[in-house]
Amino acid sequence: MGGEVAGPRLGTAVPAPPAAPSAPVPPGLRAASRAGIRARNLSALLRTVHLHGPRSRSELTELIGVNRSTIGVLVATLAEAGLVGEQPGAGSGRAGRPSQVVTARADARYALAVDLRVRQVVAARVGLGGGVQQRLELPAPDGGIDRAVAVVAQACARLREAAPPAAACVGVGVAVPGMVGGGVARLTPNLGWVDVPLADELTRRLGLPVRIDNEADLGVLAEQLRGAAVGADYVVYLSGEVGVGAGVISGGRPLRGVGGYAGEIGHIMVNPRGVPCRCGSRGCLETEIGAEALLRAAGRPPGGGAVAAAGVLAAARQGEAGARMAVARVAGWLGRGLALLVNTFNPALVLVGGPLGALYRAATDTVTAAYTEAALPAPREQARIALPAFGEDSTLLGAAELVFTDLLEDPLAPSAA
Amino acid sequence: MGGEVAGPRLGTAVPAPPAAPSAPVPPGLRAASRAGIRARNLSALLRTVHLHGPRSRSELTELIGVNRSTIGVLVATLAEAGLVGEQPGAGSGRAGRPSQVVTARADARYALAVDLRVRQVVAARVGLGGGVQQRLELPAPDGGIDRAVAVVAQACARLREAAPPAAACVGVGVAVPGMVGGGVARLTPNLGWVDVPLADELTRRLGLPVRIDNEADLGVLAEQLRGAAVGADYVVYLSGEVGVGAGVISGGRPLRGVGGYAGEIGHIMVNPRGVPCRCGSRGCLETEIGAEALLRAAGRPPGGGAVAAAGVLAAARQGEAGARMAVARVAGWLGRGLALLVNTFNPALVLVGGPLGALYRAATDTVTAAYTEAALPAPREQARIALPAFGEDSTLLGAAELVFTDLLEDPLAPSAA
Repeated sequence: MGGEVAGPRLGTAVPAPPAAPSAPVPPGLRAASRAGIRARNLSALLRTVHLHGPRSRSELTELIGVNRSTIGVLVATLAEAGLVGEQPGAGSGRAGRPSQVVTARADARYALAVDLRVRQVVAARVGLGGGVQQRLELPAPDGGIDRAVAVVAQACARLREAAPPAAACVGVGVAVPGMVGGGVARLTPNLGWVDVPLADELTRRLGLPVRIDNEADLGVLAEQLRGAAVGADYVVYLSGEVGVGAGVISGGRPLRGVGGYAGEIGHIMVNPRGVPCRCGSRGCLETEIGAEALLRAAGRPPGGGAVAAAGVLAAARQGEAGARMAVARVAGWLGRGLALLVNTFNPALVLVGGPLGALYRAATDTVTAAYTEAALPAPREQARIALPAFGEDSTLLGAAELVFTDLLEDPLAPSAA
Repeated sequence: MGGEVAGPRLGTAVPAPPAAPSAPVPPGLRAASRAGIRARNLSALLRTVHLHGPRSRSELTELIGVNRSTIGVLVATLAEAGLVGEQPGAGSGRAGRPSQVVTARADARYALAVDLRVRQVVAARVGLGGGVQQRLELPAPDGGIDRAVAVVAQACARLREAAPPAAACVGVGVAVPGMVGGGVARLTPNLGWVDVPLADELTRRLGLPVRIDNEADLGVLAEQLRGAAVGADYVVYLSGEVGVGAGVISGGRPLRGVGGYAGEIGHIMVNPRGVPCRCGSRGCLETEIGAEALLRAAGRPPGGGAVAAAGVLAAARQGEAGARMAVARVAGWLGRGLALLVNTFNPALVLVGGPLGALYRAATDTVTAAYTEAALPAPREQARIALPAFGEDSTLLGAAELVFTDLLEDPLAPSAA
C-alpha cells in the first residue's frame, strides 16, 4: 500500500504569477507554467469543497490564496466540467440575499467504497464531497477469493444501479483486513488469503479502477481528513474486528514502513500462554482482543465475527453473568493494547475504531484501569483515547478517499470524466 | 527530546547565484542573500568532511554542487576559522604528487559525549570529524542525580584536561536510558529518576552547553550518519542494557511522537505472568530481555547491569549449564522482541544495539528461530537483522553529534568558537 494514498491536504495552492514579471520569460514557457498553476489551483479548490464542504467565493479566495477574479474563473471551469455547483448558502445572518456557496457535486461523481469484513461485505456509494449516499451490508460466508469478488461485484452493481443517471463512478476503493502491497492482499489471515491480486481481480470483473489498502490505514485517513483527528499530527487508529491492526499518523504523515506493512500490532505476542493465532504464532494481541476472543471468553461458538461479538455485548448489558465476565476479561486486554500503542508511538490521540469501539463504550472503566496500569506516565499524559467520528464507517470512508485522489489531483484529466 | 536533534544531512548546499542574473535585484537584498548562501555552503562543506571524512577539492566541488573557485573560498574561510585543514591525501594511485584533501580539524573542536548506563558512566572526547580521541569508563554506584552529575563532571574534567591545548569544547551530549523531553529526564526507571532537569544541572556544573536525549534515538542517529544504517530510510535500533528501547527512523525521519517519547517498546507487556517491572507494570519486554533477565535466569544476584550480564554470556561460552539455559531462554525473548519491532514498524534494517548485541552474537540461532516464528512473513522478508557498526558505542557517538549540530549549522557563529 506504500505510496498508494497521497494524503489529500490543503495548502497546495499556488498564487498566480505577478501581473508584471520583472524578468522576461519566453512565451511558451510562460504558457506552460500558467497551465500548471491553473491545474494546481483547480485541484486546491475542488479539494477544499470536497473535504470541507460548501464555501463562499470569498472564503475560497482566502483559503486558496488567489484573488477574487481568479476564483471566479476556477469556479466557472469546474462548474463547466460538472464538478461543482453554486447554491444559496445557509445565510449570513445579516439582511439581504443569502450569498452563494460553491459545492462539490455529489450527483456528478461518486466512489464505490467496500469494507471487507470477516463475515460481511459493507459497501457504499460515496458522493464527491464525502457523503454516504447509499450503504449496503451483504453477508459473506466463508469462502475464497472468488466468493468475495462475487459479493463485492454484486454490491457494486446494486449501488451503481441506484446512482443518479448522470453520475460517473471514479472507481472502487477496498479496505482489506490484512497486509496490502501493490494492489495485492499479501496476508489476510482471517480471510485465509495469501498473495491475492485483489485489485486486478476486481478491475477485471467491474471494469473500473480499483484501489485497495489496509483497513486501519484507511480508518486513520478518513478520521484525519474530516473526523475526530482533523489537525492532529500524531494519531493512532486501532482497528479491530476479528483481526486487529493500527493505522498510524506520525509527524503528520502516515507511518507505512518500507513495504507498507507497518502497524501490524495485532500480531504482537502479548500472552505466551494464549491460544494459537492464524498467523502461526500464539497469544497475539488479536487473539486476546478480537471478536473471537470475546466469543471464546463467553463460551460461544467461534466464527461469528463482529455480529456475534455484538451479541455478547448485548447480553452483558442485560446482565448475563458469563457475558459480563467475558467483556471484563477482553476489556482488560484492550486496555493493555492501548498502552502498547501509547508506549510505542507516543500519540496525541488514539481512536478505538471498528467493533472495538463498541467494546470500549461498553466497558470504558475496565479498559481505562488496565490501560493506566500498563502505559508509561509521560506518554499517557499526552494521549487522549477517543472514539472515531465515523463510528464503524471510518474505513469505508477512507476507502472512498483512495479513489477520489486522482480526480482531486487533476480535476480536468480525461480519466476522471 | 522532540526536535532537539536536527538530523545532520548532506544535500543542503545551495548553488551560488548565476553570474549574470536575468532580473535586476536591489544591491542590499543581493548582498543579504549572498551571505545566506555562503553560510549554507560553509555548513554543507563542514558537514561533508565531518560526516564523510577527508575529501579533495574536486570531490567537494561535485558533492556540494558549487564551482571550484567557490570551493576554494569556502575552504579558505573554514581554514581561517581553524575548522578544516588541508593535508596530503592517501594518493590517487597514479603518478605525480598526491592531491591535497580537506579534513575536519579534530584538534580544533571536540564534543564531550556521555552514555549513562545503570552501573557505569561511559564518556568520550569526540573530535570534529567524529573520531573518538579518548574514552573513559567510570563506575556509577547507585545513587541519585547528585552522584550521577558528580561522576559525569569528573569524567568531563579528565577528558578536557587531556585535550589538545588549542582545542575548544563545543558542548556535552548525554545519552539517557529513559524518556527525555526538553532537557529533562522525564522517566528513567532503572536509574530511579523522575523529572530530573539533567541538562540544566550539568550546564550549571560544567559551564558548557549540554544536550540530552534518549539512548536509542542517539544510537540510531549515529548508525544512520556513519554506521550500519547509512542510506537506510527505515531502521530500528534496539537498545538495551537493563532497560530496553527502540530508536526508529521511518521514511528517513526519526519517529519521535508528540512529546519525543516514541519507541518505549521495553515497556510493552509481553508476559502477563512475568516479574514486576520498575515502571509499575509487569512482564514488560525489558524484564524478559534486559540484563537483569539474564542474571535472574542464571540464578545470579540482581543489580549487576551489563557487566554482570556479560559474565553470564562468558560462562555459557565455557559450557556452564545454568548459564547456557539462561542465555537460551532470554535469546528466545529477544527473538520475540525483534518480531514485535518488525511487525510494528516494517523496517528494512533492525540493529541489535548495546549489550543486547552481545546476546544476539552469542545465541543467533535461538534468537532467529523465535523471531521467525513470531514475525509475520511479509515484513520479515523485508527486514535484515544486523549488529551496529559502532558496537556498544553507537549511543556515545550519537550523543557527540547532538552537540556538533550548532557548529555544523553555522560554522562561523560566535557561540561555536
